Amino acid sequence: MTNRGWVTLPRPMPHHGKIPRPTAKRLSLYLRELESRIGQGETTISSKQLGQALGLTDAQVRKDLAFFGQFGHPGIGYPIGELIARLRSILGTDREWHAVVVGAGNIGRALLAYGRFQRKGFRIVAVFDDNPRVIGSDLAGHTVLAMSALPALVRQQDVKIGIVAVPAEAAQAVADQLIAAGVPGILNFAPKRLDVKNAVSVVSVDFSVALEQLAFQVSLGFTGSLDEE
Amino acid sequence: MTNRGWVTLPRPMPHHGKIPRPTAKRLSLYLRELESRIGQGETTISSKQLGQALGLTDAQVRKDLAFFGQFGHPGIGYPIGELIARLRSILGTDREWHAVVVGAGNIGRALLAYGRFQRKGFRIVAVFDDNPRVIGSDLAGHTVLAMSALPALVRQQDVKIGIVAVPAEAAQAVADQLIAAGVPGILNFAPKRLDVKNAVSVVSVDFSVALEQLAFQVSLGFTGSLDEE
Repeated sequence: MTNRGWVTLPRPMPHHGKIPRPTAKRLSLYLRELESRIGQGETTISSKQLGQALGLTDAQVRKDLAFFGQFGHPGIGYPIGELIARLRSILGTDREWHAVVVGAGNIGRALLAYGRFQRKGFRIVAVFDDNPRVIGSDLAGHTVLAMSALPALVRQQDVKIGIVAVPAEAAQAVADQLIAAGVPGILNFAPKRLDVKNAVSVVSVDFSVALEQLAFQVSLGFTGSLDEE
Repeated sequence: MTNRGWVTLPRPMPHHGKIPRPTAKRLSLYLRELESRIGQGETTISSKQLGQALGLTDAQVRKDLAFFGQFGHPGIGYPIGELIARLRSILGTDREWHAVVVGAGNIGRALLAYGRFQRKGFRIVAVFDDNPRVIGSDLAGHTVLAMSALPALVRQQDVKIGIVAVPAEAAQAVADQLIAAGVPGILNFAPKRLDVKNAVSVVSVDFSVALEQLAFQVSLGFTGSLDEE
């Protein structure tokens, strides 16, 4: 059967852990684009349209989504709403994620003051520090807990995300404690590459990378936001 | 002339502002990959090797770099060091960038405490706020200045980057003031999309996007860091 450019929809089946990493990265781009389009009142989309919006070929789009099984709707396009629901389920954004912050400093405080997490399905359930002078104090409504309380809290609250917000020199030890406590995902704000021995997932937020990206855009004369293109 | 997979090097010529945005985004990936390889002692690279490392075809790599002119070294590869120097010059990472922080809060404090900027060629030269109770106080060694002092300081210090570290509801007004003062690049930490009317470059750091990316990785069962692949 030829596919005339229409999106093939993932079947509700497991993906056997064989999704290539570049595909995994693109899934969130697909989701963001689809959410933006449904917000503008669009209801169907073709793989060609989706590809064009993201600078990908329609063949690449179809190949990416085919990792989740496939059935096409040639000639009519695919309902964006249903595709969004399927991607959210695959990507886990249809459930609530419990997170802990380790490090009761500026970053920790900024994160707790950040209103957007709850709306996106993330909830910071506790804050930890290993400084005796900070333990027991209040940080944006949370009583700062000692690191020794981490394992029990991770179990009780089903914590899936540990946010490393400590200085670079303490970051690896904190990551080791999070891994030992069974936290499967680490968001790292410390300017240090963490060695997690492929035991957990890691995303690093490096402010200097963001600044560099901005310097590139200024140097190259690009205005506006590259991410919105 | 056939190009047998060897990198074509950008000529030292202006790019006429016609670089496509996806190409511009990839230049920094090329630079990071090349810097990592030279750190490991490698001295030459082919477009095929560079493409494989980044999940791109060698044709795409050659096409991207050809926007800066081209001359190939078929059969011998290209000196990584020279390619890095050329990319740094194009991307502006071979000079010092002066930045100001607007917002003397948690994010501003965290940024000033962040040691990595200086090493990467960024220098925060001043901190601004519009709260009279904060103006004149000390923030990590900087006396917080009133917003009225912004235009003169931007001129005097040749400030190219304004860091928006204020709450969402104040972010647009701050961006407008930075643009009016002639700052060509904005790094936005506020959870709000800025309307800059394509007058300047913008990069946004959205903590919830990073958390989402981590949730995706955990959901999909990817361990380690996707960015390092």
